[in-house]
Amino acid sequence: MAAPTLDDVAKKAGVSTATVSRCLNTPDRVVKATRERVMEAVKSLGYTPNFAARVMAAKRSFTMGAIIPTMDNAIFARGLQAFQEALHESGYTLLVASSAYTPEIEEEQIRALVSRGADGLLLIGHERDPSVYDFLARQNIPTLVAWSFDATARLPSVGFDNRAAMRAVTAEVIAQGHRRLAMISGICAGNDRATARVAGLRDAVVAAGMDPDAVPIMETHYGIETGAAAFEDLMARTPRPTAVICGNDVQAVGAMGIAAKLGLEVPCDVSITGFDDLEIATIASPALTTVHVPHRDMGRAAARVLVEMVEDKRIPASVELATELRLRASLAPPGG
Amino acid sequence: MAAPTLDDVAKKAGVSTATVSRCLNTPDRVVKATRERVMEAVKSLGYTPNFAARVMAAKRSFTMGAIIPTMDNAIFARGLQAFQEALHESGYTLLVASSAYTPEIEEEQIRALVSRGADGLLLIGHERDPSVYDFLARQNIPTLVAWSFDATARLPSVGFDNRAAMRAVTAEVIAQGHRRLAMISGICAGNDRATARVAGLRDAVVAAGMDPDAVPIMETHYGIETGAAAFEDLMARTPRPTAVICGNDVQAVGAMGIAAKLGLEVPCDVSITGFDDLEIATIASPALTTVHVPHRDMGRAAARVLVEMVEDKRIPASVELATELRLRASLAPPGG
Repeated sequence: MAAPTLDDVAKKAGVSTATVSRCLNTPDRVVKATRERVMEAVKSLGYTPNFAARVMAAKRSFTMGAIIPTMDNAIFARGLQAFQEALHESGYTLLVASSAYTPEIEEEQIRALVSRGADGLLLIGHERDPSVYDFLARQNIPTLVAWSFDATARLPSVGFDNRAAMRAVTAEVIAQGHRRLAMISGICAGNDRATARVAGLRDAVVAAGMDPDAVPIMETHYGIETGAAAFEDLMARTPRPTAVICGNDVQAVGAMGIAAKLGLEVPCDVSITGFDDLEIATIASPALTTVHVPHRDMGRAAARVLVEMVEDKRIPASVELATELRLRASLAPPGG
Repeated sequence: MAAPTLDDVAKKAGVSTATVSRCLNTPDRVVKATRERVMEAVKSLGYTPNFAARVMAAKRSFTMGAIIPTMDNAIFARGLQAFQEALHESGYTLLVASSAYTPEIEEEQIRALVSRGADGLLLIGHERDPSVYDFLARQNIPTLVAWSFDATARLPSVGFDNRAAMRAVTAEVIAQGHRRLAMISGICAGNDRATARVAGLRDAVVAAGMDPDAVPIMETHYGIETGAAAFEDLMARTPRPTAVICGNDVQAVGAMGIAAKLGLEVPCDVSITGFDDLEIATIASPALTTVHVPHRDMGRAAARVLVEMVEDKRIPASVELATELRLRASLAPPGG
């Protein structure tokens, strides 16, 4: 069976092909009754407008792209789901790609989304090769960064202050009496959120008059198993840290899981903190002290800002969202 | 700044525009050194080939689309991540849309991915309006279903037997001595996995000589809070069920969370089972008895089959993957 043509739609709806074209490209210039008849014909025939011609005419594909570092845990899931719901309310379809934290793959995906005609893009974090920003500027694709607020960066952002948030957790750990700290961090190279979180921990350590270079920091991927392995390594050191501050909840939950197997009780023997406040933070036992990130608010705000960028063709002000420390049972003074 | 043209690339690489075209559309017909010089020029100029022209020439966009019901928890995350990794190894970029379990949104997204030139599509489950299948057939888009094996369905699938898996969990619950069962299920309308799981539970109940209509079944969304609310409702009934079989791990973990607040101990007062074997199943305390779904294997197999469909233009045999019962502490004989 051949794919239906513009002609087929026009015949079925009893209008000219020009009217069908107008309905698809500039629907507000067609009276409602005609438009509905045409769209009914489009739908019943399963007609897919010639994409390129339509984009050229409409200058809009009503598709947005997002590239996230991973789908393999819930870090980006909730924020992205809210982003897509809000975009849908504004009439846009979201297409998501996941780059496995690999700059080359992210670049391929940016090109794929641009050549597929995405009206706008959402990227995570600011750290990438400047040539990518040059490419986006040349292609004139509105692009917004989320998860990382930086008012001085090249692209506008909707995010939060990763450094200040981790500084606050660490200050609380120190305030509860811990002096032998350790950190399990995400891989910092290419990840401004991980880098900022390490800086935040060091800020708090310095502010407490302690030596930041005396705090062991293990960089590893964000995963349950990698968090567990890093924790096991830290617990084998002498003297043993009394508090392990993790770069995110996934690592922290991995650490908590292996603690029991090492014969260590949380928080009596060792306190553990996370970052993100994913669902696993409250499912874990004991519940995890962590930084609450307003993922859904961030996703909705990002959708609003990106739609404005696409439709009003202007660069908006960046939006900073507040995070909150959530104190739960996994953190207690040394000795419980 | 104007977007770079084919001419700019040809000049920079010192070749004809036809050669640039060949490099982009049929790279295997160009010698490696030339191809690399051209691709270097494409990259440094930030050239994006005219999408429509390229697709018409190459008949291939090297983009696959997947539509999943939700991104808002880990149900589809791990399988999809494996799917995308395997596609990437075959040279394809994956674009993902999430339909919020809403047929109309899924249909919009199918049309968006088709009109964006996706070479093939992955959909979850078989249950949708026949007009969608007609549309896909007319557009001649290779489409594969995952998460649900059905050799008799209109589209080929890479999935597992949801009904048999749930029958096995339920048989085990009954074998451990439970007679007062209850089920928390996903919404069955439009969801063949949820429907099959309910049927599997009923199969096992009937096989044990019990009355399937005496088992209360609460249908609710797959969520922590919705699982908790359904569980609270079930626990208020007289006589109280001694085992609650959940449609997935997310609902089961929600049930376990509220059990403590209701003063009930798991498994002494009530056993709880899940489905999927997500990471939360082992993080939960006690650990959750559940069905292990080989999500990563399924994702990789789906990529392999879909690439074959696109490249060899033939309908493959469906692939069934085995699931496994994972017995953990959340299930015990009545009374603990």
